[in-house]
Amino acid sequence: MNTEDVAKKVVELVRKQAWYEALDLYDDNIVSVEAYSMGGGSPETRGKEGVRGKIDWWVNTMEIHSFDVGDPFVAHDRFVVQYDADVSDKKTKERRKMSEVGVYTVKNGKIVREEFLPRVGG
Amino acid sequence: MNTEDVAKKVVELVRKQAWYEALDLYDDNIVSVEAYSMGGGSPETRGKEGVRGKIDWWVNTMEIHSFDVGDPFVAHDRFVVQYDADVSDKKTKERRKMSEVGVYTVKNGKIVREEFLPRVGG
Repeated sequence: MNTEDVAKKVVELVRKQAWYEALDLYDDNIVSVEAYSMGGGSPETRGKEGVRGKIDWWVNTMEIHSFDVGDPFVAHDRFVVQYDADVSDKKTKERRKMSEVGVYTVKNGKIVREEFLPRVGG
Repeated sequence: MNTEDVAKKVVELVRKQAWYEALDLYDDNIVSVEAYSMGGGSPETRGKEGVRGKIDWWVNTMEIHSFDVGDPFVAHDRFVVQYDADVSDKKTKERRKMSEVGVYTVKNGKIVREEFLPRVGG
């Protein structure tokens, strides 16, 4: 699959909230970078099993009221997707809206790097 | 300036279509990457004077009907901005809408790399 194929597949799966299926598009040595570290650790997660752990956390922690996925932007080995989520923490019931983009790098048909960048008010 | 400062400044200047002023935010060794090469050359332009040439081309070639600039998305050394333009070629009068994101990398308060990724229909 080329970059555009991977981008379209990510968008298709994430629109269905098929998080674990999307994991098949990841390289074993994926590096996944959040804007902030959770609990004082590194903002970087390495490896497919690490990303699976992030999905587990997301699914177990969040009630998802809506999850909007934009069309992908694609060039060369890179693509960008915008996510707009409305979620509540299942435990605390705290509800918040999140807007961020994912910047993905593709090599040999697999995602080798993803970075998440939250929106900054203009 | 940190990444967020640079991102906000780019957005502020580009919203005013102050293209040449925005050039002050670029590192001398900037690498600017388009999705496609123009005229069969490389899609990469290197150096501030190269980017100045791209601005000259843009300003001389395009009549800009509208140019919408989204809020920036920021994390670590990277930021992303979405651009939605409605432009006509001054010579051919051909009018078209363009939607793309810029993915920028910042080092020491200057933009060292920018990549432009056009939207792909979902």
